[in-house]
Amino acid sequence: VTRNAKTGTVYLVGAGPGAPDLLTVRAVRLLGEADIVFHDALVPAEVLLLAAKAQKVAVGKRCGKHSTAQRFINKRLLDAAREHRVVVRLKGGDPMLFGRAHEEISFLEDQNIKVEVVPGITSALAASAELKISLTRRGTARSVAFVTPRLGEGEAPSNWARAVAAADTAVLYMAATDAQAVVRALSEAGVKSAAPIVVAESVSLAGRALHTGTLADLPRLVARCSGGPALILIGEVFEAAQVLAELGPVRRTASHSA
Amino acid sequence: VTRNAKTGTVYLVGAGPGAPDLLTVRAVRLLGEADIVFHDALVPAEVLLLAAKAQKVAVGKRCGKHSTAQRFINKRLLDAAREHRVVVRLKGGDPMLFGRAHEEISFLEDQNIKVEVVPGITSALAASAELKISLTRRGTARSVAFVTPRLGEGEAPSNWARAVAAADTAVLYMAATDAQAVVRALSEAGVKSAAPIVVAESVSLAGRALHTGTLADLPRLVARCSGGPALILIGEVFEAAQVLAELGPVRRTASHSA
Repeated sequence: VTRNAKTGTVYLVGAGPGAPDLLTVRAVRLLGEADIVFHDALVPAEVLLLAAKAQKVAVGKRCGKHSTAQRFINKRLLDAAREHRVVVRLKGGDPMLFGRAHEEISFLEDQNIKVEVVPGITSALAASAELKISLTRRGTARSVAFVTPRLGEGEAPSNWARAVAAADTAVLYMAATDAQAVVRALSEAGVKSAAPIVVAESVSLAGRALHTGTLADLPRLVARCSGGPALILIGEVFEAAQVLAELGPVRRTASHSA
Repeated sequence: VTRNAKTGTVYLVGAGPGAPDLLTVRAVRLLGEADIVFHDALVPAEVLLLAAKAQKVAVGKRCGKHSTAQRFINKRLLDAAREHRVVVRLKGGDPMLFGRAHEEISFLEDQNIKVEVVPGITSALAASAELKISLTRRGTARSVAFVTPRLGEGEAPSNWARAVAAADTAVLYMAATDAQAVVRALSEAGVKSAAPIVVAESVSLAGRALHTGTLADLPRLVARCSGGPALILIGEVFEAAQVLAELGPVRRTASHSA
């Protein structure tokens, strides 16, 4: 099978947690070269400015809001690759973590379109940097799990809570919208209600906030969020975060249940 | 407590997997401003070139080789912060994953030295990008665990194998030196010997290689490595990697036990 010489390449690029200087050098270069950029709703305007000459197309996806159907995104990427040399699909965080990259890659490769993936800083690591707490603090944690309770349509229930319970540290993505259900599932899996947690909102951005407490406090901590994307971090390493609750350059709140 | 006005800041910076253009923009800027850089042995020369005006000091750590004692590194960072404005501690991958960041941060903060952390691309995500296989492929994986079997001196045994068994996908860091023990521990934890694996060596660098097979093949796959840093990736999502074994721009090998 030969590729049309005029067909472009689709780059799945990680936009990182939000701060423009947390993109990789490779990502910035590709955005500068891009003819067209298809981006998630969560990618900030300052990041999109890096794609100076590109047409920008928002294609979802913001939690809870209606997002462009995946099939439609796939089709638009294909059309763009037939028309342009450099097509960028810009995804928040890292494209290979909870990003539905697989659907886009397999569709495009089936259509004989060249695909490259450029990794990005996933927000769990940016949150860890802001907290200055290692996810795998020696002596306390030798494993960290990144999970989501979120399922696709028709997807079989996953055992995400078991993965959290078995790891020393865990980070939950796209989990803050149903805090009660998260607490229930984790308790059933054996996570103690006194386990230290941090809810990290809008990591790396101006409106960032860190809310600390225990698993039992989760609903209250989530209620304090201002609507930005939020991560839930759980584990003994975050005991240190409780002490820091009133300190530091970012908005911090602490909650302790009796 | 007041800080000496002349005291510098120590930046713990992630160097990413090795390719210089996989550093973040922030990391590149700080390297350019650095007066002195303390770096792991695994950070490639091309990355160190970004610290044009800085004094460079290698402070370990390469698997299996004798590395500078952590206490000595801490002391050197402290002395440097008292002498210089911008001190960079450059760590392979992300500084908060398996990087002993905690020891350095807590020591420096106890000495009233300002510390900032700049996240980096961890090699698991760079390997996923090279494989073009999502670590959390929808319908197959909703959790991924990053673990290490490696323990510090006097550290209590961890249940890393249980964390691997409970997650849909797992990535093992610093685990390739004792493949037999890894297979044994994972089998005891309930991971099937037919579980698809990829050994990813020197991710993002010119000498990179992807070796695919099953857990039972691990010792053979590791024996094919050329001595670069190697990751072990495990999970159903890597079934696709078996098909790709002879393709692509990087050196790939496949092994299948009968």
